[in-house]
Amino acid sequence: MAQNIYDDPQFFAGYSQLRRSVDGLAGAPEWPALQALLPSLKGARVVDLGCGFGWFCRWAAEAGAAEVLGLDLSARMLARAAELTDDGRITYRVADLETLDLPQGAFDCAFSSLALHYVEDLRPLFASVHDALAPGSRFVFSIEHPIYMAPRSPGWSLGVDGQRTWPVDSYQAEGPRRTNWLADGVVKHHRKLGTTLNLLIQAGFAIGHLDEFGPSPAQMAERPELAEERERPMFALVAAERL
Amino acid sequence: MAQNIYDDPQFFAGYSQLRRSVDGLAGAPEWPALQALLPSLKGARVVDLGCGFGWFCRWAAEAGAAEVLGLDLSARMLARAAELTDDGRITYRVADLETLDLPQGAFDCAFSSLALHYVEDLRPLFASVHDALAPGSRFVFSIEHPIYMAPRSPGWSLGVDGQRTWPVDSYQAEGPRRTNWLADGVVKHHRKLGTTLNLLIQAGFAIGHLDEFGPSPAQMAERPELAEERERPMFALVAAERL
Repeated sequence: MAQNIYDDPQFFAGYSQLRRSVDGLAGAPEWPALQALLPSLKGARVVDLGCGFGWFCRWAAEAGAAEVLGLDLSARMLARAAELTDDGRITYRVADLETLDLPQGAFDCAFSSLALHYVEDLRPLFASVHDALAPGSRFVFSIEHPIYMAPRSPGWSLGVDGQRTWPVDSYQAEGPRRTNWLADGVVKHHRKLGTTLNLLIQAGFAIGHLDEFGPSPAQMAERPELAEERERPMFALVAAERL
Repeated sequence: MAQNIYDDPQFFAGYSQLRRSVDGLAGAPEWPALQALLPSLKGARVVDLGCGFGWFCRWAAEAGAAEVLGLDLSARMLARAAELTDDGRITYRVADLETLDLPQGAFDCAFSSLALHYVEDLRPLFASVHDALAPGSRFVFSIEHPIYMAPRSPGWSLGVDGQRTWPVDSYQAEGPRRTNWLADGVVKHHRKLGTTLNLLIQAGFAIGHLDEFGPSPAQMAERPELAEERERPMFALVAAERL
């Protein structure tokens, strides 16, 4: 079973205060780029893998989805998600992405935001998502970029010229990375970008688009603290078509 | 026209002494991984974009290719390549990858080793390669990985713990990078990995495989100086299928 860090009280308290938790999709700078990869959700059956507080699920329902299934490992997050909606098209369910079991051909779109890097082995998950999607439908997800996740001790470095760099090491060493983010001992799984894409292809997806997200000039004008994200790729946004 | 640094006497002299120039494919640690992406070349018509001294062209002919066309901007390199073979199946021709013009459907495999990062705009090149390939055939190439190419001042950093890191900056700033490698003012063009893959997809290719090359334990045992390449992705090796 995947580590359930989101039910850790310290992590949950910290996570609840993140801008993306308070402001939802509008607080996530990568959301416009991720949204651009989505198909029309009008009448669609949608599944959200790692739905958290349900921001995307509610957005999908507003965008006209016929059914939205939000899955998360954290019962605590799902409880809050459930409080935030009374839309009958949305269902929340506790589920472990490591051992996901979904009905065949039951969805027209699969979505996941910043959850897959908690999954140790993507093979069974991608197989399950593939079979759960109708042929021709899309799987859109974001992950922390492996450049962001690879280092043994991730952190900015300030050069003598005052320029920030993001020191990379251990890129070829795929496997767990233990960080202290909001709580101690959060475990994420570093995979090369190529590995993630190759696993998708092997599972029967065609790569449709890869966006190594960086903030736009307008976003940096509004939130100057985002400027450092021009130096590195922070997130990878992927659209894949189920063949 | 692309910068023709290979005809610069200083660059040419330095390049000629590189292990991969002296030992050919056997001197290039990524060659086994790149070779693994190639289809069978038996009876195939093959084009090599940026063929240099012709190591791959000769290998392709030995692997049973029916015709091999080696293209390079450097007449000097092609002259040496021509000296190294009398195989009538191999033709060398001076060509600029920026303005490549190839006959339609004339090839069963396109190959390129560490040349495309000298090309400013991949769009016309990918369109030309697409049309020059028969449907279902493969385009296999290597490029310097953008993580390797992005920094303003690329170079290793040694931490207080003696650990090497590869400081990354300017990843989101696509465009020219001027380095002093073998000669001063060598111009390469930094593109995000996503940009290269998306341009392939837009040109009508399906991504088949992405290998962010790192040396194997056996390679490091044989050549200990390769160990640092475990810290970063040095090359990206791509296989794409012409749809």
